[in-house]
Amino acid sequence: MIIIFKENAPEKEINLLEKEIRALGLDIHKSKGQDTLLWGLVGDTSKINMDWLAARQIVESVKRVQEPYKKANRKFHPQDTVVDVAGKKIGGGHFQVIAGPCSIENTQQINSVALSVAQSGAGLLRGGAFKPRTSPYAFQGLHDEGLKLLLEAKKVCGLPVVTELMTPEHVDLFQDVDMIQIGTRNMQNFELLKEVGKLKTPILLKRGMANTLDELLMSAEYIMAGGNENVILCERGIRTFEPSTRNTLDLSAIPMLKKKTHLPVIVDPSHACGIRWMVEPMALAAIAAGADGLMIEVHNDPEKALCDGPQSLTPEMFNTLMDKVRRATAFFREL
Amino acid sequence: MIIIFKENAPEKEINLLEKEIRALGLDIHKSKGQDTLLWGLVGDTSKINMDWLAARQIVESVKRVQEPYKKANRKFHPQDTVVDVAGKKIGGGHFQVIAGPCSIENTQQINSVALSVAQSGAGLLRGGAFKPRTSPYAFQGLHDEGLKLLLEAKKVCGLPVVTELMTPEHVDLFQDVDMIQIGTRNMQNFELLKEVGKLKTPILLKRGMANTLDELLMSAEYIMAGGNENVILCERGIRTFEPSTRNTLDLSAIPMLKKKTHLPVIVDPSHACGIRWMVEPMALAAIAAGADGLMIEVHNDPEKALCDGPQSLTPEMFNTLMDKVRRATAFFREL
Amino acid sequence: MIIIFKENAPEKEINLLEKEIRALGLDIHKSKGQDTLLWGLVGDTSKINMDWLAARQIVESVKRVQEPYKKANRKFHPQDTVVDVAGKKIGGGHFQVIAGPCSIENTQQINSVALSVAQSGAGLLRGGAFKPRTSPYAFQGLHDEGLKLLLEAKKVCGLPVVTELMTPEHVDLFQDVDMIQIGTRNMQNFELLKEVGKLKTPILLKRGMANTLDELLMSAEYIMAGGNENVILCERGIRTFEPSTRNTLDLSAIPMLKKKTHLPVIVDPSHACGIRWMVEPMALAAIAAGADGLMIEVHNDPEKALCDGPQSLTPEMFNTLMDKVRRATAFFREL
Amino acid sequence: MIIIFKENAPEKEINLLEKEIRALGLDIHKSKGQDTLLWGLVGDTSKINMDWLAARQIVESVKRVQEPYKKANRKFHPQDTVVDVAGKKIGGGHFQVIAGPCSIENTQQINSVALSVAQSGAGLLRGGAFKPRTSPYAFQGLHDEGLKLLLEAKKVCGLPVVTELMTPEHVDLFQDVDMIQIGTRNMQNFELLKEVGKLKTPILLKRGMANTLDELLMSAEYIMAGGNENVILCERGIRTFEPSTRNTLDLSAIPMLKKKTHLPVIVDPSHACGIRWMVEPMALAAIAAGADGLMIEVHNDPEKALCDGPQSLTPEMFNTLMDKVRRATAFFREL
Repeated sequence: MIIIFKENAPEKEINLLEKEIRALGLDIHKSKGQDTLLWGLVGDTSKINMDWLAARQIVESVKRVQEPYKKANRKFHPQDTVVDVAGKKIGGGHFQVIAGPCSIENTQQINSVALSVAQSGAGLLRGGAFKPRTSPYAFQGLHDEGLKLLLEAKKVCGLPVVTELMTPEHVDLFQDVDMIQIGTRNMQNFELLKEVGKLKTPILLKRGMANTLDELLMSAEYIMAGGNENVILCERGIRTFEPSTRNTLDLSAIPMLKKKTHLPVIVDPSHACGIRWMVEPMALAAIAAGADGLMIEVHNDPEKALCDGPQSLTPEMFNTLMDKVRRATAFFREL
Repeated sequence: MIIIFKENAPEKEINLLEKEIRALGLDIHKSKGQDTLLWGLVGDTSKINMDWLAARQIVESVKRVQEPYKKANRKFHPQDTVVDVAGKKIGGGHFQVIAGPCSIENTQQINSVALSVAQSGAGLLRGGAFKPRTSPYAFQGLHDEGLKLLLEAKKVCGLPVVTELMTPEHVDLFQDVDMIQIGTRNMQNFELLKEVGKLKTPILLKRGMANTLDELLMSAEYIMAGGNENVILCERGIRTFEPSTRNTLDLSAIPMLKKKTHLPVIVDPSHACGIRWMVEPMALAAIAAGADGLMIEVHNDPEKALCDGPQSLTPEMFNTLMDKVRRATAFFREL
Repeated sequence: MIIIFKENAPEKEINLLEKEIRALGLDIHKSKGQDTLLWGLVGDTSKINMDWLAARQIVESVKRVQEPYKKANRKFHPQDTVVDVAGKKIGGGHFQVIAGPCSIENTQQINSVALSVAQSGAGLLRGGAFKPRTSPYAFQGLHDEGLKLLLEAKKVCGLPVVTELMTPEHVDLFQDVDMIQIGTRNMQNFELLKEVGKLKTPILLKRGMANTLDELLMSAEYIMAGGNENVILCERGIRTFEPSTRNTLDLSAIPMLKKKTHLPVIVDPSHACGIRWMVEPMALAAIAAGADGLMIEVHNDPEKALCDGPQSLTPEMFNTLMDKVRRATAFFREL
Repeated sequence: MIIIFKENAPEKEINLLEKEIRALGLDIHKSKGQDTLLWGLVGDTSKINMDWLAARQIVESVKRVQEPYKKANRKFHPQDTVVDVAGKKIGGGHFQVIAGPCSIENTQQINSVALSVAQSGAGLLRGGAFKPRTSPYAFQGLHDEGLKLLLEAKKVCGLPVVTELMTPEHVDLFQDVDMIQIGTRNMQNFELLKEVGKLKTPILLKRGMANTLDELLMSAEYIMAGGNENVILCERGIRTFEPSTRNTLDLSAIPMLKKKTHLPVIVDPSHACGIRWMVEPMALAAIAAGADGLMIEVHNDPEKALCDGPQSLTPEMFNTLMDKVRRATAFFREL
């Protein structure tokens, strides 16, 4: 951590701060230029709050050198983490496609989609029972009934299931779920992160639509600090000024996250673009950029879907996509 | 709601959609150009999900004409709403300043700040007991103990209190709180919004740092649809590309929100800028733009604050600010 | 184009507007709902300024249905455009890599890079003679001398050359340049666009770092409307809130542009990311997403480069990349 | 400037870099932590290109401590600059309103607006002769003829005139213009900045719609480095995700710019919001935030304006605004 002092900062105040910093067990390297006094703090600064230093009248600015995350940091854990979701491995060379409808609507729908995505080669089944919707008047999911249908579909298709948890109060309902999704709007719902940090269930943590990669890693750190190190990160598009897609898919997040962390990184092109015909090119681009998996919305009848119809693939489109995905992952594995 | 069809959309599909739309009790006005077929849907479209239409193969795009919010909409409620927080009125010409520390640290600190802000003319006391922090290693607030200290400080200073609720599980602890704050990271924590929609307590709803004004109003609608119409909106800065301030304060949100909604709108310049010396000019600008109130962070010793020190005013600075605030609100009331 | 009127707009004003619109040769389809009056304008509205309508007191809002670009629009030109740059074709299945240093520094440097990128299989040589730099104190390029060196390097390596034009005043110096680049900061330098619209030379038009795809196409339209239809579009990263990369590469721009326009689309991963080790994964992702080419910065000694050293590949790295590019383009051509 | 080295950077390379840095006349203060080696460069680093350092394999990152602008920097020029535009002073306590139509349309229009804004108390007349328009098919201004009409209107109303220069080629036509505007899309048109840097005419430099404040100051530095220190900065709204206004007016730019620079700062609420009824509250907010002036679009018949009608005030609305502006500037001068 680097402290840059204001010109003419009174020596007395500087000495006081030095004592406080040394009391934390940190060492200080001082650099005095013609106009500028800099300090480099030496030691473990990951738990120091920059604001504590920035609040001082004598301080011009504070810059962090070390990353504030430890458990998620590749520096301290160089090998790729492989997350095992009920026998399906993700990360460290293991690639999985998670597929299914945005929301579970009825037995026939979820079973039909489940069977078809399994047959096409998906590794996990997704389906929403509790749905975060912008409007209070929109369909909010089937709730407990939806979870029940999802677990039945799991038996029908044989795939592990992933579904979104929206509040700590529902956590008991999710005991048989194989992977719990934390959605984009809850990436910084810290009480929810703490709650799933207590579980053993793998967590699929989606990037907030306006959150930086370091903030995503700090949210992963919340879960890991609680004891649950089975975290998979998911890039799903960020909010920008461009109106032609729902969000802007940030594929550079893949190599950058893989540099910063050992956790697996998957991509959700369906939510990023919000348009059916863009899913395939962006899915292939995600593979080329090094993703460990994909999350794809599939619906047996997208035109009648209760949510996210415009971006859902039909089972036939998904089958075609899976064929290309298999060939592309094989190609890039060899490249 | 306007539907624009794809060129060469098959008539059979169009006729099918017409039946479905009419079954919802809506009328259709058709406009056929040389290349383009448009439909205007007539009737109450506020509860129609645009995706349901956009998902059709025959549909090029869907545009909303009516706003999707009803209870928050000024069109259906032309008079300004006045929210009464334990005797302190906000909105409809009533202006209040909410002041206090970012987080409650101990009895001495909160009482000292409470007394000084009350003496300077603040209308409500703020103080965080449960703190949303980016890092799991940062101070997370005193929790129940913090709430207890806040309620004691309320007795000491005589001001109603405002504090942040982070999860539905804590709602019982907030029974004696006069106004509940929903923070920027929870603006789309829909389960939390539903929970506070069941209460009678006034809700201070902060704009998400990357949310549009219409999304803010939809979140207000969640609370109001649940039965709690005591909602105050708060602009607190949005995320942009500009690095010199923590966020970019969007003061144009004030007149725009006041056009769209009857709810009171206040401004938090402390979180928006993140810098102590910017609070005063931005507070005065907020008044000039028509804000119904301000939220200001004040700390007895900002240099030692456990959070948000860099943006906290000292009691002396706050006293000077309040003098200017009083004069500025009087000036603009007359202008 | 759709006009939505304000409630209670006076009929007299509406009738007046109707006359003006019909005088432009447009037809009007009217739709009257319970609260809302809509008009659909029928005919060629591409040259109508939306502001002319939006400025009316009686108008609530105006929405465009037709795209405002014609010559760049795939609707009116369904086949892919193939641009021929001195024998090197780009677009419609023809893929090219443009490579070279950010700026031309001296004979030895540009010739050395030119020869090595040619040997590795680049199709065109890039090199800056006039450099847009944020700081007036930074190296601004060798100017006329740089152009001379570039044209000599062209003879040495046998590749067509691409270089940036910054102002209409320099256009005469660019007569022997094979493709003229319009940089990101000049995408809306309309006088410059008009100037290159008068030429026959192919134009490489880079997306402005905060411009939408429709704005990019309107800038292409400026050039094409002037008579020069040899335009190649280049995605090079957009400005977002994410600080870990210089810009955020928007690969979804590739399929979206290809839907909207017949012009070729290439990608510059070097400027987008600003980091050497990210160039390869993002170049491969661009190919997977359907790009018609790549623009890659290569320097014989990146550590001593006068600009953009951090993102420049060494000739060895470029050679390895080209091998993968060849295999990836072949793979995706077959997929 | 601070250099952070990679772990395990070879000493030989580090020693080499040390020699190069010392050869530039800079001193180095070294700080060696347990994992991290930092250097603070001491001396005038304003002309060092950070990329030159960041490109090294041994360098992890480079952080700037000193600002890269000198002439625009308040540190080296603590007093407010007062720019005198043909007798009208701006800055250092002098406040001016610049008003007029977006574009000059004909004699009657510009003279009528000129007289009315002068009568209402505007200090300068604006009017566009060369108009940057997104569409090549939109009205592009009257060009030379427009300038002629503007200079005639100047005689009629007695106010100095401001108009936009779009390309170096037109500079000779602007000899009698009192202040030259560089528009938002040309803020980083560096050849144009160099050109106006050679003049004595005051320059109104508008912030690029996606440019940071430091980039704005670097563009001012371009003009000042050329010898023209008569620069006025103008905040006119930035591009964000919020769709309800044309841009987001960043009023926090005013106090922040005034901290960073001695140059005057004015605000253009018309372009920022794009909506007539928002001009007044945002103009008053700009005054409260400390602006040195305002730029307001006024048209004698906004509904017929050839451009920017939706945001143009009528002369009557402008007269009402000017009355409030006078009272507000007087109020804040005393506050």
